Amino acid sequence: MNALLDPPGRPAPPLQVASWLGAGAPDSLAALRGRVVAIHAFQLLCPGCVHHGVPQAKRMREMFPERDLVVLGLHTVFEHHDAMGPAVLRAFLHENRIAFPVGIDQPSDDAGNPIPLTMRAYGMRGTPTLLLVDRRGDLRRHAFGAEEDMAVGAAIGALLAEAGPRA
Amino acid sequence: MNALLDPPGRPAPPLQVASWLGAGAPDSLAALRGRVVAIHAFQLLCPGCVHHGVPQAKRMREMFPERDLVVLGLHTVFEHHDAMGPAVLRAFLHENRIAFPVGIDQPSDDAGNPIPLTMRAYGMRGTPTLLLVDRRGDLRRHAFGAEEDMAVGAAIGALLAEAGPRA
Amino acid sequence: MNALLDPPGRPAPPLQVASWLGAGAPDSLAALRGRVVAIHAFQLLCPGCVHHGVPQAKRMREMFPERDLVVLGLHTVFEHHDAMGPAVLRAFLHENRIAFPVGIDQPSDDAGNPIPLTMRAYGMRGTPTLLLVDRRGDLRRHAFGAEEDMAVGAAIGALLAEAGPRA
Amino acid sequence: MNALLDPPGRPAPPLQVASWLGAGAPDSLAALRGRVVAIHAFQLLCPGCVHHGVPQAKRMREMFPERDLVVLGLHTVFEHHDAMGPAVLRAFLHENRIAFPVGIDQPSDDAGNPIPLTMRAYGMRGTPTLLLVDRRGDLRRHAFGAEEDMAVGAAIGALLAEAGPRA
Repeated sequence: MNALLDPPGRPAPPLQVASWLGAGAPDSLAALRGRVVAIHAFQLLCPGCVHHGVPQAKRMREMFPERDLVVLGLHTVFEHHDAMGPAVLRAFLHENRIAFPVGIDQPSDDAGNPIPLTMRAYGMRGTPTLLLVDRRGDLRRHAFGAEEDMAVGAAIGALLAEAGPRA
Repeated sequence: MNALLDPPGRPAPPLQVASWLGAGAPDSLAALRGRVVAIHAFQLLCPGCVHHGVPQAKRMREMFPERDLVVLGLHTVFEHHDAMGPAVLRAFLHENRIAFPVGIDQPSDDAGNPIPLTMRAYGMRGTPTLLLVDRRGDLRRHAFGAEEDMAVGAAIGALLAEAGPRA
Repeated sequence: MNALLDPPGRPAPPLQVASWLGAGAPDSLAALRGRVVAIHAFQLLCPGCVHHGVPQAKRMREMFPERDLVVLGLHTVFEHHDAMGPAVLRAFLHENRIAFPVGIDQPSDDAGNPIPLTMRAYGMRGTPTLLLVDRRGDLRRHAFGAEEDMAVGAAIGALLAEAGPRA
Repeated sequence: MNALLDPPGRPAPPLQVASWLGAGAPDSLAALRGRVVAIHAFQLLCPGCVHHGVPQAKRMREMFPERDLVVLGLHTVFEHHDAMGPAVLRAFLHENRIAFPVGIDQPSDDAGNPIPLTMRAYGMRGTPTLLLVDRRGDLRRHAFGAEEDMAVGAAIGALLAEAGPRA
């Protein structure tokens, strides 16, 4: 499974979120220790997100029990900021029946850098990006662009099979 | 072809548009007399539009010459008004590489009726809706919901085969 | 519609069929004068036929009334002759619920030329091939390979809109 | 992962194969101990196999290294026996570019029971059926019908993450 997962040892940076939409928002990534976490970073006007990433994240949510896999959305707006504010996102989540919590990535306050803070901390190259965090809190997969369901399933299946942190 | 087209004799109501985005906006429906016109009524947050109607309208534009078939978008916002303003629509058209003109259906100024004016004049039931207008300006097809490409193609093919108005 | 249809004036060659499977086999192409005829030439082991052409022909059959459009299959075996005999074809039609008649293109009796006779008379280049014959019996479209549903629909719609032969 | 995998402890019955087509046929299931084995049971005229199972098995082969995952086809003919003999299967594998070995399930010699022997030993209910065998030779998943790629990927990923037999 080397190709599907990075080795352990790289803790996932904290999520820097301006606010959460939807029920079930976590207090922090650290609070999810013991479960596998899938973070789907997207923009609501990004065609690759709308046509591939968001439906795939919904399939994840439907396929795996919540006690095993946490699915989080992260709205990482780095372009068209005026067009993708919270009201638009709220309507988008409603219309698309997104049943997992979605955090708004903390906007940059640096006029020269439009990249929001979590996106920057993870070094994301664009959207959609899928991040997988293991039961110990390590970032084990960081994938930019459309990925096949079978590969995503295999990575999640392998992470679920791993032991969690010591109690 | 009775099932695919309504009989002639019902002139298409005028389009009531607040403003047009994209190049090639028509002065009026009447100015397009002699060509077949496909009008794709949509909302940018409507999943059926994003996943079916908009891609289908793009295929129409690619398949038929502009001198034969005019393709127009009509943004008929009847819900989530705050989330689907002109700035969002402009970004949506850019991201989705929409190459045909899109009119913003004239918003209602009646607080008790959120349906925009063209949508109301045509009696549309929701989005996506596809309207086909023949060479003489008559409305020959009004279809709500997802339609198969073969049916849409057959209706357009039949209308293109009809003679236009007398010069 | 020039791109979608060839001009009239080229009579469709007769079908040379060893036997027909399924109900509703025509006596001849000539006997279908007055209706539009779609002929889907295929081989049951050809992936492009199985995945694209055959499902498309089924959609044609479901979409248009039989009094307007005749849909015929033509099994044009030009390779793997031992693997695609009548028993295999019969099982294939059963399993795929093909509801239109399918003719077995008359095998060649020339050891040096494995192309069956109708395929040869039409100059087909391979499978799948879609042939459209107008109400007067002229061949108006000959397309090799996968075609989009919208283009096929447009061609059929235009042919259906044409007048038939004088009574 | 309970829903995706059965518990260990049930050894996979031997494959009873009349002959193998394609390169890389295993001597036996037992000889594959230490690797995960996916067995795709199909019939070449079964639409669910042709449209879903076979393409999915091909994606498995492309996604996982051969040293980790063995993919085997098993042609389990239980109907239309005359139409799905070895010559037809050979042409089918060629046309569909199947790059993994396919065994012909040993036909029944009992006139009253058309079910071939491996299909019978596993208690398969029809085609397509996907079987997953773990590194120790236990049958961990037996699924009849179309399955989603994400579920198949997750099951394979979890099995790949398990330790193999002691050396």
